[in-house]
Amino acid sequence: MNVAGVAYRSIWLDEDGWRVCIVDQTRLPYAFVTLRLSSPDEVATAIRLMQVRGAPLIGAAAAYGVALAMRLDPSDRSLVRAIRELAGTRPTAVNLRWALERMRTSLAPLSEGNRKRAAYALAGVLCDEDVEVNRAIGVHGLRLLRDAAGRRTGPLRILTHCNAGWLATVDWGTATAPIYMAHDAGIDVHVWVDETRPRNQGARLTAWELAQHGVPNTVLPDAAAAHLMQRGFVDVVLVGTDRTTAAGDVANKIGTYPLALAAMDNAVPFYVAAPSSSIDWTLEDGLADVPIEERDAREVTHVTGADEEGVERTVRVTPPGTPAANYAFDITPARIVTAIITERGVTPATRAGLAALFPDRREHAPL
Amino acid sequence: MNVAGVAYRSIWLDEDGWRVCIVDQTRLPYAFVTLRLSSPDEVATAIRLMQVRGAPLIGAAAAYGVALAMRLDPSDRSLVRAIRELAGTRPTAVNLRWALERMRTSLAPLSEGNRKRAAYALAGVLCDEDVEVNRAIGVHGLRLLRDAAGRRTGPLRILTHCNAGWLATVDWGTATAPIYMAHDAGIDVHVWVDETRPRNQGARLTAWELAQHGVPNTVLPDAAAAHLMQRGFVDVVLVGTDRTTAAGDVANKIGTYPLALAAMDNAVPFYVAAPSSSIDWTLEDGLADVPIEERDAREVTHVTGADEEGVERTVRVTPPGTPAANYAFDITPARIVTAIITERGVTPATRAGLAALFPDRREHAPL
Repeated sequence: MNVAGVAYRSIWLDEDGWRVCIVDQTRLPYAFVTLRLSSPDEVATAIRLMQVRGAPLIGAAAAYGVALAMRLDPSDRSLVRAIRELAGTRPTAVNLRWALERMRTSLAPLSEGNRKRAAYALAGVLCDEDVEVNRAIGVHGLRLLRDAAGRRTGPLRILTHCNAGWLATVDWGTATAPIYMAHDAGIDVHVWVDETRPRNQGARLTAWELAQHGVPNTVLPDAAAAHLMQRGFVDVVLVGTDRTTAAGDVANKIGTYPLALAAMDNAVPFYVAAPSSSIDWTLEDGLADVPIEERDAREVTHVTGADEEGVERTVRVTPPGTPAANYAFDITPARIVTAIITERGVTPATRAGLAALFPDRREHAPL
Repeated sequence: MNVAGVAYRSIWLDEDGWRVCIVDQTRLPYAFVTLRLSSPDEVATAIRLMQVRGAPLIGAAAAYGVALAMRLDPSDRSLVRAIRELAGTRPTAVNLRWALERMRTSLAPLSEGNRKRAAYALAGVLCDEDVEVNRAIGVHGLRLLRDAAGRRTGPLRILTHCNAGWLATVDWGTATAPIYMAHDAGIDVHVWVDETRPRNQGARLTAWELAQHGVPNTVLPDAAAAHLMQRGFVDVVLVGTDRTTAAGDVANKIGTYPLALAAMDNAVPFYVAAPSSSIDWTLEDGLADVPIEERDAREVTHVTGADEEGVERTVRVTPPGTPAANYAFDITPARIVTAIITERGVTPATRAGLAALFPDRREHAPL
C-alpha cells in the first residue's frame, strides 16, 4: 500500500537484486526507516527485534533469509544452519516454521549451483502467494462492506483492533484488505482504530498505515469501542486472527472478545478476516485448546512514545514494582462471530461452514 | 486509609487548626506530596489543576475553601465571591455545587463574627458525612464479598475499574470500601485493577492506594478483563458510578459497560457502589438522558509517566496529528447490573428497588 504516495510492500528486493529490504517497524510511527539485510544473521536479528512482525511477513522474511544464506554458501551445512537459526527467532510463530519447511524441501534436493536462484524464486513466490491470499480476502470482504455501505448514508464506519494490516503481511493485510479495497473503490470509509493496549499496535501501526494510504481514521481507547457501538457509531467490526479453530473459535489479540460481546449486544456485525493458514484444523474448543501466551509485565506498566523533540522514550505509568497481567490473546467464541472471511469466501463461524470452504484441509482434522 | 503505615484521609486540617491539607494527586504515584492550602484561591487552583479530584472530595475541598474565605474576610461579599470562584472550577461537578449551596444557606444568615467557626464546623461535617456514607457502603458490600469468599478456597478475586477509591472521596472510597473492609477483616482478597485508559486512574491511583494499604493487586489492560473472566479468574466485578438513573442505568468511567457485558457472559456478579448522592432521580434512560463528556484527544494520543530517573515525562504514542475519540463515560444498562450497593443497603438495579431504599428521594422523580 502507499507510504507518502509511493506504493510499498512490507518486504522487497533491493535494486541490486539480492539484498532484502524491510521497514523497521520498531521505529513506526516515529520514523519511517527502511533496512537492507545482507545475510541470514541480519534477517534473524530483524525478526528477533520485531523490526519485521506479523505472522505472514515473518514467514516471508525467513524465506529470504534462506535465500541470502544460499547466496553466501549454497552447501547443505549452510542450508541447515540458516533454517535452524531462523526458526529459533520466534518460537511460537507457525508461519515461520511452515515457510522454512517449504524452503528446505524445495532446496535440499537441488545441486548447490541451482540453490541460490531457486531460493530467491521460491521466496518471491511465498510473498506473492501471501499477497494473493490477502487480495482474495479483500475481494470477499469488499462485498460485505459494499452491502453495509449501501444500507446507509454517510461514511461506512468500520472498527478494527490491533494491526492486521499490510505491515503484518506482505501487502494488503488481512482485516485491512477489504478496507483498502473499499477506499480505493471510492466507498467513503472511516476506520475506528482501537489503540490496542498494551503494545499499542493500533495507535502506532494501524493508524499510521491507514493515514499513509489516505484512509480516514480515529484512534480510541480499547474499552471505548463498546460505547461507540452503544451510540450507533459503528457499522461493522472487522478484525484479524492469530489462530482459528476448526469450529470457528477465534484466538486474536487481547481485547477482541469484549469487542465481539459489544457488537452482539448492539447488533453490529462482527467479521474475522482469516487466511486459511491461520485455521488450525486440529483444534476444536478455542478456550480449552489454544494456549495463551503471557508476556512481560513491563509491556503493561511502561509505555514508549516520542517526546516533544521526537526522541523515543519509555515511561512507567504504575507505581514502581506493581505486578501486571499481560495475556497476549483472548478467545472469541464462534457463537458471537457473525462470519469469517477467508481467501475462498465468507462463511458462518461453524465447523460445517469452514469445512465446506476447505474440503481439502478438513480431512486433517481429528475425528 | 494507610499510606506507608500511617492512616490518612484525602483532606484534613493542619496542626495549626486552620490550613487545609491535601495529597497532590497529579503527582501520584510518582511522588507523595501533601499541600497546605491557605486561601480560597489556592483551593480553587488545586481543584482546577485536579490536585484534588473525585466528586465527593471536590465537594469537601470547596467547603473548606469557603471556610478559608470566612477566616480571611467573613463579609457577605467575601462569601459570595468565594462560592462563585469555587463553583467555576469544575463546571460539571454536581457535588461541588451541592456542597457550596449547603455552605451558603448555612452561613448567609449568620453574623460575620460567627461565620468562620460555623464554616469550619460545617466543612468538617460534610467530610464526616462522606466518610459515613462510604463506611455504610463498605458494610453492605462486605456482606456480598464475605458470601463470595465463602463459596471458594483461595483469595477472593475482585476486579475494579478506574479509581473509586479513598483518593476520590474523603475516606474509604465507594467501590473500594468493601474491599478495604474485607482486607481489614482478614479475608484474603486480590484486586485486578483495570489500568483505565486513557487517564490511567487505575494504574496510577488505585494500584497505588491499594498497595499503600497492603491490599494485593495486579494491573491489567482494560480489554484483558474479559479474558480473565473467560478463564475463571474473577469472582466479583465491583465499580463506582458517576451518575445512576432512577431506573438503575449506570454512567461510569469509559470501559465499564464492556466489563458488565463480559461479566454477564461469564456469570460473574457485577456490582456498582453508588452513594445516593450519585443517583439522579430525574433521569430514567441512561443512554438517552445522560450527556457524555468528550475530552481532549491528547489524553488518548499522549501518555504521562516517570522515566528511569523518576522524572515525569509525556510521550506521544500515535503518529503526529492522529485524531482520537475520548468519551469520558459510558452507560451500563440496568439489565446487566447484578446489584447496586448504596449506603442504605443492596438492591437490584431497578426503579422499584432503588425507590424502596430511598422513599424520601423518589418523590422528586418525574411522574
